[in-house]
Amino acid sequence: MRVEFINPFLSSMLNVMSTMAHMELTPEKPKLKKGETSMGDVSGLIGMISPEAKGSLSITFDAPLALATMKGMVGEAPDEINDEITDLVGEITNMVTGGAKRLLSEKGFDFDMATPIVVSGENHAIHHKSKGPIVVIALRGELGKAYIEFSFDE
Amino acid sequence: MRVEFINPFLSSMLNVMSTMAHMELTPEKPKLKKGETSMGDVSGLIGMISPEAKGSLSITFDAPLALATMKGMVGEAPDEINDEITDLVGEITNMVTGGAKRLLSEKGFDFDMATPIVVSGENHAIHHKSKGPIVVIALRGELGKAYIEFSFDE
Repeated sequence: MRVEFINPFLSSMLNVMSTMAHMELTPEKPKLKKGETSMGDVSGLIGMISPEAKGSLSITFDAPLALATMKGMVGEAPDEINDEITDLVGEITNMVTGGAKRLLSEKGFDFDMATPIVVSGENHAIHHKSKGPIVVIALRGELGKAYIEFSFDE
Repeated sequence: MRVEFINPFLSSMLNVMSTMAHMELTPEKPKLKKGETSMGDVSGLIGMISPEAKGSLSITFDAPLALATMKGMVGEAPDEINDEITDLVGEITNMVTGGAKRLLSEKGFDFDMATPIVVSGENHAIHHKSKGPIVVIALRGELGKAYIEFSFDE
């Protein structure tokens, strides 16, 4: 696993949430996913392809945290996950991956991003199926947790 | 929407299910997704990138159909969605996309595939967030439905 990938994805996520939604999340220590499952209610997923490696990223939110993020961005939010929220999670996924892409490009690792897919459904679980280890970073907000996960074939 | 993309994905799906799991699925008429939501219990998702377009594909299964697919492939299956099933759905997603990639390459459209992500969770919904229309093809099996969906930025 490329440890140098962790900070670009983490700092991009913290930056997007802070600047777009005025929300400060507290990251827990990044770790390798082994057996345990991160569950959530709405997730943004995106594929990444570089000449050296292929991979996938997911950002999974508890519903109350996703709704609070919308409220932080535009001042109001629906009562439950709807198309506005899945659009927002898709945009956050694009922005976080785009920010990490710029940071990683400075380190000489260039990748292209596919288009995001958003999954909604109470308590779903995400399983990255690349060949490499899966890095998971939990982030705590006042109203719930988010998880960034990524994995590359290597 | 590129109508010529439909048959490569559909015929690759029918071929994978038939040859790997001895399962004949009956496709319904492909259509553009407008408002309605395909729900399922386990989904394989993958990103696609070409010089001309970026996109995403999903294959969503009802749980009984996913379990029957495992049984068709290896003779036995667990009682519920577990890691074996999510591995299988990830492999099917890779095989279907790889088959479509070969067929589309013959038509002069080349794309690269990212690595698959599998989502598990009762009744989740998939929302493709590329800029183009979303094509959805429902497939009926004896024990449930599957849905192929794909979308490209254009």
